[in-house]
Parts: sequence; C-alpha cells; structure tokens
Amino acid sequence: MLNFNYSIPTQIFFGKDQIQVLGKEIKKYGTKVLLAYGGGSIKKYGVYDKVVGILKEENIPFWELSNIEPNPRIESVREGVRICRENQIDFILPVGGGSSIDCAKVIAAGFYYEGDPWDLVIRKAKIEKILPIGSVLTLSATGSEMDAGAVITNPETKQKLGIGHPNMAPKFSILDPVYTYTVPASQTAAGTADIMSHVLESYFSNNTGAYVQDKIAEGLLKTCIKYGPVAIKEPENYEARANLMWASSLAINGLIRYGKEAIWSVHPIQHELGAYYDITHGVGLAILTPVWMRHVLDDDTLDKFVEYGINVWDIDSTKDKYHIANEAIDKTQEFFTSLGIPGTLGELGIGEESLEKMAKAVTEFNGGKVGSYKPLSYEDVLDIYIKAL
Amino acid sequence: MLNFNYSIPTQIFFGKDQIQVLGKEIKKYGTKVLLAYGGGSIKKYGVYDKVVGILKEENIPFWELSNIEPNPRIESVREGVRICRENQIDFILPVGGGSSIDCAKVIAAGFYYEGDPWDLVIRKAKIEKILPIGSVLTLSATGSEMDAGAVITNPETKQKLGIGHPNMAPKFSILDPVYTYTVPASQTAAGTADIMSHVLESYFSNNTGAYVQDKIAEGLLKTCIKYGPVAIKEPENYEARANLMWASSLAINGLIRYGKEAIWSVHPIQHELGAYYDITHGVGLAILTPVWMRHVLDDDTLDKFVEYGINVWDIDSTKDKYHIANEAIDKTQEFFTSLGIPGTLGELGIGEESLEKMAKAVTEFNGGKVGSYKPLSYEDVLDIYIKAL
Repeated sequence: MLNFNYSIPTQIFFGKDQIQVLGKEIKKYGTKVLLAYGGGSIKKYGVYDKVVGILKEENIPFWELSNIEPNPRIESVREGVRICRENQIDFILPVGGGSSIDCAKVIAAGFYYEGDPWDLVIRKAKIEKILPIGSVLTLSATGSEMDAGAVITNPETKQKLGIGHPNMAPKFSILDPVYTYTVPASQTAAGTADIMSHVLESYFSNNTGAYVQDKIAEGLLKTCIKYGPVAIKEPENYEARANLMWASSLAINGLIRYGKEAIWSVHPIQHELGAYYDITHGVGLAILTPVWMRHVLDDDTLDKFVEYGINVWDIDSTKDKYHIANEAIDKTQEFFTSLGIPGTLGELGIGEESLEKMAKAVTEFNGGKVGSYKPLSYEDVLDIYIKAL
Repeated sequence: MLNFNYSIPTQIFFGKDQIQVLGKEIKKYGTKVLLAYGGGSIKKYGVYDKVVGILKEENIPFWELSNIEPNPRIESVREGVRICRENQIDFILPVGGGSSIDCAKVIAAGFYYEGDPWDLVIRKAKIEKILPIGSVLTLSATGSEMDAGAVITNPETKQKLGIGHPNMAPKFSILDPVYTYTVPASQTAAGTADIMSHVLESYFSNNTGAYVQDKIAEGLLKTCIKYGPVAIKEPENYEARANLMWASSLAINGLIRYGKEAIWSVHPIQHELGAYYDITHGVGLAILTPVWMRHVLDDDTLDKFVEYGINVWDIDSTKDKYHIANEAIDKTQEFFTSLGIPGTLGELGIGEESLEKMAKAVTEFNGGKVGSYKPLSYEDVLDIYIKAL
C-alpha cells in the first residue's frame, strides 16, 4: 500500500427530502448564487421549482446559467464566469448530473482567473482561487458531486480534458435518490457503466497490498451489477436508486484509489472519442472497457483478472486462470449490453475516419503513453479503437 | 437505506514517515500542545523521541500527560484539563492507541466546561466547545483516530461509558503502520477483534437495503481475517499492518453505518465488564461476540447470518440456512481463539459474583434494553454473561 493523504471534505446530505437543508447550507458559504443546470429535465420533473422555491423563500438572490451540454463545453464555462463577474456572485449551485457540476467547478475556478478559462484546463495557467460550490444531484454516474475534478470539452480544438484542484470539491452535495426516478433507462445504463469504469480504473493497478481498497472496489462493482438492472426495470425502486447513487460518489471520491497508483487508461481514450463524437460518456466507456481488458490481459496482469473474475463475477476459482480471466471480461461485456448499451462504436455510427487522429491526440496529450496499468502507446490505443468498432 | 448526513472531516496522513507533517499540521490549529500518552511503549520504541524532536525543532512549546490507562480513567481526564488550563494549552496531541486518543478527546471537551468532566460523560452537562486535537496512532483497534467518540472509565462508580460530539473528531491523524510493528501478538489479536466487532455492530442491523455499506463491511471483515494472523506471525509485515490500520479507521468512521440504524449491543455489555474487571477491551469483545450471536440467532435474524456466513466466511450457499448461520458463528469464535484470545471469561478469572449487578447496570443505563438489532433485556444480558463464563 502506497502512502496517501486522505481528505474527503464534501458534506453529503443523502436521502429523501434532504433538499430542505439547501438554504441553510448555501448561507454558510455565500450570498448570491449562480444556479447552473442543463436541459429541461430538472424543470420537467419539478426539481427546478423546488430549488427556486427555496432560494426565494430564503431570500437568496440568484442568476441562472442553463443549457449546459451533456459534455459541458468551455463556452458554457465562459458564459458562467461572465454572469458571476457581472453580478458579483459568490456561490455556484449546479443542479443536475456531472455535466452541470463539472461546468460549475470550472466556472468557480475561472472566476478568479483573468484570462480565458480554457487556459486552466490545458494547464497554461494555474488555478489559484475557487468560488465555493454546492450541488443537487439528479443523475448517478460521474461522482462529480463528491470529487475535486471536472471534464470540459472544447469543440474548436477537439479536446475533452480533465482538470482538478482540491478546492473544486463541492462544499456540500444533496443526494436524493428520488430525483433519479425519472432518469431514462439508457441514461441509467450509461451511468452504471460510468460508475463501474471509475472503479475498474483504480482496481486494475500495479500496486499490490491495498487489499482494503480492492475489497471496497469489489463491493461497489457488485452494487452496480445488482442494482443497475433493477433501476432500469423499476425506475422508482428506491433501494436500487439509493445504492447506485451512493456507489457513484464512493467510486471516485478517493476511497478506493488511496494507497494505489492509478493513472487511468480507458477514460482518456473515451474522452478523445467524446471530443470527436458527442456520444454519451458512459456508453463510450462500456464499449471500450472490455476491449481494453482483452488488450492488456497477459501473464503479468493475469492474476488481477482472476481476482476480478472470482470476487466480482463469482466465477469458479478451480478453473484455469486464463479461462477465469476471459470469462470475467466476457461477463463484463455481456453485462453492459444486457443493460441496453450498444456493444460497438460502429453501432453509434462511428467509422474508421478519425481513429488515427484520435489515437495520436490522446497519446501525445498524455506524454506518449496512456495510463499506468499497462502504459498504452499510439499503436495500443489505435488497436483498441479499431477493435471497438 | 435510511437518510444520512456524511461528514468525515479528519485528515489522514497514512504511510511510512508521515510523521514529517506533524509540525506543520499542529501549527494550523494551535500554539501550545498537551502531549498525551500511555505507558512506556512509545518511549521504548522511539516514537516519543521522534515526536518530541519535531516539537522542539518547530519551537512548539508542550506539556506532558503520561500514564493514561489502557481503559482511560476520568482521573486522567481531570489531570489533563488541569494542565491545559494552567498553561493555556490550545491543542492536544495524543500519541498512542485509542486510550490516549479517547482521553485527549474528553480533556478537549472538559477544558471548556467549568464543572467536573465526568458530568459530560454521564450527560449531566452538555459539551459546548472543544479544543482541537490531532493524533499519532500506534495501535490498530479502536478507530478513535478517525471518529468522534470516546470511552471513559470511572472506577469509583464502576462505570465505563461512551461519549461523543462531532467536534471531537481529530483534525488530523498520522497513521504510520511501522509504528505498530512492536505491538505484541496479544494486543494485535485484541485489536483485530475490536475492529471486527465495530464492523459487526453495524453489519447486524434491522435495516435492509444498505447494500453498499454491507459490502464495505464484509470487505473490512475479510481484511481482518486475512491480515490478523499475518501480523501476529510476522509483526513487521508492512502490508498486514497497513491493511489492519486502515481497516481500523474505516470500521468506525461512519462509512459502514451511514444509512442504517445500529445501536450497538456487544460493546455496552463489554464496557460493563471493563468497568468491573480491567480486561483488554478487544478480548472481552471476542469472547462476548459469538455468545451474543448465538443468543440473537432466530428465524428473524437467520437471513442476515446466512449472508454473513456466505459472504464473509465463504460457506457453501447450498447448505441449510441454520447450518450456514451456526457454522458462521463457530468460525467467528474459532478465528478469535486461533489468534490466541481466551475463549471464555472464566479463563480471565471472572466468576459469577458480579454478573447480575453488571447486567442490571448495563440495561438500566441503556434505558431498559441494550442494542437495536435484537433489543436485549436484563435477562438476555445476564444469559450472555453466564454463557460467556
């Protein structure tokens, strides 16, 4: 187990009607609010009315940034920064899924930076100070509600990049599983795949000895395997929605990564796809993950895949090791397709045309090799894209 | 899953040589330190010298409270409060196991209370304000390094009682597994039993649907089962010490209890024992836990015991349910004795003489019934004591 510094500062208010704490919590950190959200779903299903009702009741002045994209764009960040500056806003309240929260995080950092916020994303400038944010979650997927990272897309440069800073973590997040009842099956499936991918990116690491962390990781994976299908079949099953929601936060808040080195592999490959094609993040991950697994399975990684197969998929431990490993990968892929997620990039209408450009971009941006488990070269990444077609 | 508010504010510095952060961390919170510790072990094995060296190097004035008892007594708390007031101390640094940290927590609360600090423990007075504390851990057991509770003994009234307040949680804790290399086998065994008991007290709950939490709990139990014996056989096995240490913190910091109702059962019964007989806390828990399990196993609780047997002890799931449950309890008991822990209270020299008094005291203090899983009456508690003899 490697050394680590544990600090998960976000307060979570989890459960039914926890929205009631919103006014009191905001007032701890700010006086003027930017309410940031995506499409119309929060309006359609009443969450918007509830939040706005509370802000009015508590006499908290607020401005709105709406239409944040599913893959949030730098243009929305710029617009958010503009609104905050114009109105001397001192607190950002994203209401939605990871897209709104990610966008809010970078607005919060961009507020204190004089140049273009994109500079922060491409590391041209350093984040110095950040506005406080608090979130109301309506989608179980990215874990942005309890972590310190964000992913922003720049369609002009065809880049989708991660950015992080300890102070980007929300001060609080309100997680009411009931708010996810209206998430459609396809988004529930993609969210489940996203959670599982976050876990797998840390689980498959070259460090041994972080046993506690791996046991927690296996528990989160089993949670997704158990409740993903239930939430799709019974969208208003509280137990399923609650377990998925809490798993989404725990998957990426640091808990399973502490004590391990885990520079992610599949996410950067998917981010490049997301920059070229506006596909659902979790769908891309679900397609790429099994392909990546087959690519990195070899004598060095075999034991970890065997552990994965036995502990997560309950595969008979007396079988041949490669048999277990391959069965585990098959089961992973079958699980994703059983949720209704397309099995190939081809099904999304993606062809060969940009694969080389994407593979080049992702390896170059990552300093020549992608990920730390089996560092992937240009050829590796290209092979993964091709096999995923 | 019940509603919960998640907040685990303690920063953890985990791993080799993390003691280097001590000076910087203390200076964030205070200027004059009470160094609180137990017997001579931290002096014998060099941790004391290391800590004192840093305090001197960083020019942080400090005073000492030594000889804190393994079951820390209210007298030590009083003495600590006195030293703090006399010297206008503003930060408490326990170095040791749960005893020193628990004692420090109540000193921190007692500092701001004008009356006798025992009033706070028996809820005669309310905790209003608390000095900041930070800990250096040298024993994996109580989890006090990352939680907001403490247990204090009053030999005069024969009471050993828990006390808690959110602000009692240490601001930071330094967890270097190497500092536990010198913990003797018997204490390593008792510590492992203590960790497992903390997990079991939350695991066995009447709430269903907190699946994530239960998966994490099972992972922590498996960690203890795997690494307890290793740490006893190879005291300087870093991996074993590290996993036990991190498990000890996660077992009781709230993570596995969120979303469940779990008023503990075995701990209060053991605390009463500890107030009458100065036995090692983890030893009492290891003896009482299997007896308690047999006492509460019935048609209502059967399924939870089956879950426990299959998921924690890998018992064949096709067997009869009661067979699985009883085998799980047997394995729990065998595991504790395999660590070298006595199997009965009789082996500790405890006889029948005070059992009725203890059973009466513990049920009365808990308002008539002990625990929430199967609320235990006076007769239940007495039966458990008798069967544990």
